[in-house]
Formats: sequence, structure tokens, C-alpha cells
Amino acid sequence: MLEKLKEKVLKANLELPKRNLVTYTWGNVSEIDRESKLIVIKPSGVDYDEMTEEDMVVVDLKGDIVEGKLRPSSDTPTHIELYKKYPDIGGIVHTHSSWATSWAQSGKSIPVMGTTHADYFYGEIPCTRKLSEEEIMSEYEKQTGLVIIETFKDRNPMYTPGVIVNDHGPFNWGKDSNEAVHNAVVMEEVAKMAFRAKMLSPEDNGADEALVTKHFLRKHGENAYYGQG
Amino acid sequence: MLEKLKEKVLKANLELPKRNLVTYTWGNVSEIDRESKLIVIKPSGVDYDEMTEEDMVVVDLKGDIVEGKLRPSSDTPTHIELYKKYPDIGGIVHTHSSWATSWAQSGKSIPVMGTTHADYFYGEIPCTRKLSEEEIMSEYEKQTGLVIIETFKDRNPMYTPGVIVNDHGPFNWGKDSNEAVHNAVVMEEVAKMAFRAKMLSPEDNGADEALVTKHFLRKHGENAYYGQG
Amino acid sequence: MLEKLKEKVLKANLELPKRNLVTYTWGNVSEIDRESKLIVIKPSGVDYDEMTEEDMVVVDLKGDIVEGKLRPSSDTPTHIELYKKYPDIGGIVHTHSSWATSWAQSGKSIPVMGTTHADYFYGEIPCTRKLSEEEIMSEYEKQTGLVIIETFKDRNPMYTPGVIVNDHGPFNWGKDSNEAVHNAVVMEEVAKMAFRAKMLSPEDNGADEALVTKHFLRKHGENAYYGQG
Amino acid sequence: MLEKLKEKVLKANLELPKRNLVTYTWGNVSEIDRESKLIVIKPSGVDYDEMTEEDMVVVDLKGDIVEGKLRPSSDTPTHIELYKKYPDIGGIVHTHSSWATSWAQSGKSIPVMGTTHADYFYGEIPCTRKLSEEEIMSEYEKQTGLVIIETFKDRNPMYTPGVIVNDHGPFNWGKDSNEAVHNAVVMEEVAKMAFRAKMLSPEDNGADEALVTKHFLRKHGENAYYGQG
Repeated sequence: MLEKLKEKVLKANLELPKRNLVTYTWGNVSEIDRESKLIVIKPSGVDYDEMTEEDMVVVDLKGDIVEGKLRPSSDTPTHIELYKKYPDIGGIVHTHSSWATSWAQSGKSIPVMGTTHADYFYGEIPCTRKLSEEEIMSEYEKQTGLVIIETFKDRNPMYTPGVIVNDHGPFNWGKDSNEAVHNAVVMEEVAKMAFRAKMLSPEDNGADEALVTKHFLRKHGENAYYGQG
Repeated sequence: MLEKLKEKVLKANLELPKRNLVTYTWGNVSEIDRESKLIVIKPSGVDYDEMTEEDMVVVDLKGDIVEGKLRPSSDTPTHIELYKKYPDIGGIVHTHSSWATSWAQSGKSIPVMGTTHADYFYGEIPCTRKLSEEEIMSEYEKQTGLVIIETFKDRNPMYTPGVIVNDHGPFNWGKDSNEAVHNAVVMEEVAKMAFRAKMLSPEDNGADEALVTKHFLRKHGENAYYGQG
Repeated sequence: MLEKLKEKVLKANLELPKRNLVTYTWGNVSEIDRESKLIVIKPSGVDYDEMTEEDMVVVDLKGDIVEGKLRPSSDTPTHIELYKKYPDIGGIVHTHSSWATSWAQSGKSIPVMGTTHADYFYGEIPCTRKLSEEEIMSEYEKQTGLVIIETFKDRNPMYTPGVIVNDHGPFNWGKDSNEAVHNAVVMEEVAKMAFRAKMLSPEDNGADEALVTKHFLRKHGENAYYGQG
Repeated sequence: MLEKLKEKVLKANLELPKRNLVTYTWGNVSEIDRESKLIVIKPSGVDYDEMTEEDMVVVDLKGDIVEGKLRPSSDTPTHIELYKKYPDIGGIVHTHSSWATSWAQSGKSIPVMGTTHADYFYGEIPCTRKLSEEEIMSEYEKQTGLVIIETFKDRNPMYTPGVIVNDHGPFNWGKDSNEAVHNAVVMEEVAKMAFRAKMLSPEDNGADEALVTKHFLRKHGENAYYGQG
């Protein structure tokens, strides 16, 4: 069942330790098969070194396990909310990568300090509001998904494929699991350089709108001219 | 004598250079066999590259060498005080890992800036008070153990399995030597991200209590639901 | 056509991931053959792992492709402006290396904080002014080249073989592609140490003129005595 | 001639790239044979990858080449001044390692922020005064040696085996070349942690005298009890 997708999701998960985004068993990647409405996701708390395709868990959009011997990632309800809300999202990744998580812990959005950011993320990478005690105590992981959706109520998540959850860490997404992980790697790099630029120029709030728009459109949309596409 | 435990303690010690927690011969891991009340600990000043099971030193709770050709770690008296006080501690590790040591040198406790911290450490990771000149000059390493115990007088050390000793560096513990080293690796990561978050938001003193409690209980206690346990 | 140069430019490009200056497909190196006035440059958006000599693109000084199956780097017009203006420049490299880019994002020139800088770059490494909206919207990459030239109007670019483009990132050059990449590696190291020195001494604006001149002349000019030359 | 010493000095030099203290050909290690009063030192500007025992240069205390096909390190006159002044120094190393060099560029001594420092360096690691223009323009490298000696006029260099030269970088020494490099590795680690502690606690000027003395004496002097000695 969904054997090719399991293989793909396993590989996308294995990118996380390879790209230094995770410690131990932290982090998780999923991808949805839109036709069957089934999600393949990493199991909870399993070593990356020992993970196999068979360990991948298949869940439906209610969160019920459809196939798999192991428990899915404890963050599965967050993934589900995003898949349900945004039909263009095909893959999702969550890590505690150190630079993006540092921003999350500061409670601040990552401003667009330069073109590296603008090449991938249109506008600041927003930090969610803090969850209320009530939200935390009831269906916490689902509420995490809902607060991400609330944060993007006036934005297109495909133009800004990432968020930092307040006092927690980053989520990224893309058209599939590979693109989601790619965006997570870039966001970590962007978060690192934004931190350093802010240390050098605390009063600087970012690049000019025209530059940001130019760089985003070099890589995205009809008139993109980066790459071989 | 205690051959299996020596093998285990050797392996736990070798995790330290592998996880980039030590330079040269710095650092030491021990584990206690509660039945025989004997501790297996790394020898002092021996290269990790050349260390063998036979180099591990067996000491009793008075600090006397029971078996071994080499001197035990000079920090052995600190380990002993902790084993004597806390029956749940099975393994202890001390390093000068750079982020946790930087906090120790600042004399400040590591605040709970986010969920990565809360997943492993309940509440701030405390920094001990400075030792008095008298304490330093008489049985210094034993006094280091006693000041850690003083720091935890109103806390459960199994809920916050680590401390930073003022102007010195971190100690971590766990139910055995593997868990102790695991906690040391996580504390280093937590210390790094807390540093950066404080640089971005100097006035921020950490995550909300509800979030901290929620994350700690996701991984610990009766209703934990992280992992496959 | 220009087979030896393609091989050389490929190797210079492969130094970028090896020296940790790039993420994914970012960055590009070129070299000009002054006799034929043809430039060999990296293709746009191709993985370093899979890049071959045949992928290198040959363009002329008008930017037209003379040979090659792939699109040249989107930054090609910037390279061309520099080659046209400065006959001593033989090779050019552009990356988003993290320390130099952090300075670019801060909008500040890198001051000469010490001799490591002075060994390679005479005087501060300048940050360009921001481009106007008009410049950004029309022939952006060419305008990037022109603003670099404007920045060097009173300086010899061969004495300061690098620049940081405001809110974007570094460009470096040299007598050939190897020297350009060498200068990029050094500039990244210089940017890192300047950042840290400024954090420790925010009011410090750099080393004395005599020291700077001495170090530059140890390595450059008629009386150089560093190395075996 | 001095073949064993050449082999030893080569190995000590090769530790520099292995321990990430140098970029390209930067840095140099020497050792003196006190009997013959001859110094073996790295040649100037040669790649570490290609360096052989035969490349090592033998110079006397006047700086004349006694054996060797290559030029000695341009910093040789600095080494010579230290060997002439301090009979206990057997080996010397100079690098532009990034953390120690950042301190040098800030013009500040490295304060004793904790026990890691105190284990190896008694008291702060001093930063020299700036050289005058006259000193820089005449026998610069010799003057660098003399200003180090001036900095240590009231101190024992064997108790504080390192210095940072203002706006330049670190020099370290020891009883032989191995110990010198060991001290350089530790000083880099100490410089890193002192930087971070100062960022967290800018007003903190270091550990108590009693703690510093205790740690230094645990490893040095008659009553040392660290290691197997």
C-alpha cells in the first residue's frame, strides 16, 4: 500500500539528519496522496539509523492508522490540519533545527533581511501567537495546526512555505515531501543569517520591497528565469 | 568484575567525542551497580582513542579503588555524592561542552525558552551558587557534589536531569549512563538555542508554564504519548 | 571549445560546496578567456554533485550563449559588467556564504579589524548602496554589476578583491577563477571574525593604518616576502 | 640533520588543519633543539596537504637558514625572540584561529571566565598593546616578539602559555611543539566560551581567584592530581 510513497517519505526523513536539522529522533516528514486522501508519516521516536520503509505509518485525515505497526509521529494532528486546509500542500516537515527554533523561542517573526530569504519566502516568515492554556491542554497538536492556519489567514502559504510556532519550532511545507525538506534547509540558513544581520544592525528591519519582490519572482511564477525550467 | 558494566560505561564515554561534547581527554561518564554499590568510571586523563574496557576503574562509595590499574577521574568524588544522595540516579556525565559551559561561566541558569527544553528538563536548568574559598580549598570535588545537591533541595533531579556548576560546566544524569549522555547531548542543544533566543529577545524569560508542563508530560509520566513505549 | 577552461571553471565551482560556501545549487564561478573575449560560467540551478564540464556555458560579452545546452547562471550579466570594466579581473565568484551575506544584510561594510583581513583586502570590504526600485525592475543583474563599479570608483578592485552587495551577498574576483574562489573563502573567514570582534568591541573601528599597510605589502607588490615566490 | 625533530615538527604542523585552526597555508609551528640552538620551522606559504619532512627549514637564532630549500615562515623572527628570551619554551605555534583572532581584533584580553581556562592558563590570556608605526615599519616580526615579551614582563609564560597579539592573532607555546599545539587548541576553545559568556553576562569579569588557583594546581605543579602522572 502506497509503497512508492513510503519509500519517498523515508528518503525525505533521512535528509533531516544528513542536513543537520535534527538531534536523535526529533523531527518528522509526511506526504499526502491526494487521490486516496491518505498520509504517509514517520513513526514516533524511532532512530533514523534504523528506520525502514515498513516503519512508515499510513493515516487518514481523521488521524486513524490505516496501515503500520508503529505509532505515527505525535505531531500528526498538526500535519492533518494543514493538509485539510490547504489543497496545494503535498508534504510537511517539522524539526527543532537550531536557528529557526531560536527565532521561535524569541517569539519574533524572521524579517526579510535579504535576497536569500526573498528567493524562497515572500515576506517575513511569521511567528504564531502563543497558544492559550486552554488550547494547550486540549488537542494541543491540532491547535498547533489551527494557529498556523490563523497566522496565514491573509497570506498564501505556497508563497511563504514555512512558519515558526511560538516557543516551539519550525514547520515547512511544499508541493511534496522533498520540497518541504528543501524549504526547511533553506529556512534554517535564512534564520541563521537573519540572526547575525540583526546582531550587526539591530535597527534594520529588512530589505526593500522592490528587491524582495524581484528575487521572489526570479524563481517563482510565470516569468521565473532561475534554473533550467 | 562488572565486565558488562565496564563495556557499557566505555561505550557511553566514547559517545562524548562522537557527539562533539569533549576536547582531548576532557569529560567523564560513570554508572553505578546499585546491588554491589560499586561505580565504574572513566580513568583520568586518558585519550578516548586508546581507551579500553580494562581502563575503566571500579570504585566504591567511599572513593576507594576496588579494581583498575589507573586513577579514576578526578571528578569521582562529585559523582559519588550524587549517587549517595539520589537512589534513582544510575549514570552521571560531566563535560565542558561549549554551550552549557558558556552558560556556567555566565553564572546564569538556563531559562525554559521553548519546548525542546521542556521535552527533557522540567523548569530552568539551574546554575549552582559559587563555591566559597573554604569549599574550594578543602575536598573541592566533593563540595561540587554537595552544592549540586543544595541546588536541588526543592526539586526532583529526575525531572531536571542536569545542572550547570557556576564558572565550571555541566553535569547530567539519568537512570543509567546512556540516558545521562543522552541528556547531556540535549542540554548542549538547549543551551545553544537559549543563548540565541536571549540574544534576539533579551527581555524574554521563557515559555508559558502550561506549554512547558504539556511538553514535559508528552514524554514523561503515566500519560506520555511520545515514542513507541 | 575552451575545453581546458571549462575543466578549470568546473573545478573552481566544485570548490564552493567543498569549502562550505553554498547550499544546494546556490553560487556561481566564471572565468574569461581574454583573447577570445569569451566567458565560461556555471549553468543556472544545476546540482554540484551532477555537474560536468559539458554543462559549463560559454557566453560572449553581450551575454549571448556561444556554446552550451543549458542556461547560464542568472547572475551572468553582473559578471559581464565586471569583466568589461576591469581588464585585470580574470575570474569572478558569487555566493550567499553565510557570514559575508550576514554583513550584506546588515548594510554595513566589513571594517579592517585585523591582519587576516589586511593580508588579502586593502581597506574595508565595501557594501554597495541599495539599488533603486527602477534599477531593480530593469536589468537587475546588470545594475548589480554597475553598482559594484560605482562602489569602486576611487579604489583598485585588485587590491580589494571583493564586495558585498547590499541586502544580497558577496562577489569576489581575482586574476583567474581559482584566485577568485580563494578570495571568497578568505572573505568568509574575515567576515566571521569581524562579526565577533564587533560584538566584543562595538566601538572598535579597526586596525591601525600602518599595520594594515604592512600586512598587505607582506603579501602583495614588489617587496612581498610571504610564500616561496 | 635533526631528522627526528623535522618529523615531529611536521606532525605538529599537520595538527593545525586537523584541529580546524587554519585556512589554506596559514599558521606555523616550530621547535628548538636547545643543544644545537637550531630551530625547525614550517616553510612559508606551502600547502599542508603537500608538506613533507624535507620542506621543514632549519634556522639558527640569528634567523639564518642552516638547512632547507624553502624560505622559513615569515613569522620566524617572532619565534626566535621568544626562544632567545625564555629557555623553558621548546615549541611555538602561531595561527589565525577564528575565536582567538576575534579576541585579538577586539583588542581585549581573554578573562578567566571559568575552570576550562584555569586548567591551562593561569590568569587572563593577555592581549598585547598595539605596535607603534615605527615598530611596524622596521623589523615588524621581531617587534611582535618583543611586544609579547613586554606583555609578560611580570608573568611566567609557562603558567600562561599563550598570548593574543593586538589586531593580529594568537601565539602559543609549550615545552615542545606538541604541547604548544595542544595549548593552541585549548585556547581556541577557551576563547569561544569566553565570548559567549561575555555576551550572556557583559558585566561578569570572571571566576573567583580561589577557583582559578585550585584548577590550575589540579593540573600543574607538585600536587597535581589530574591524569595518570
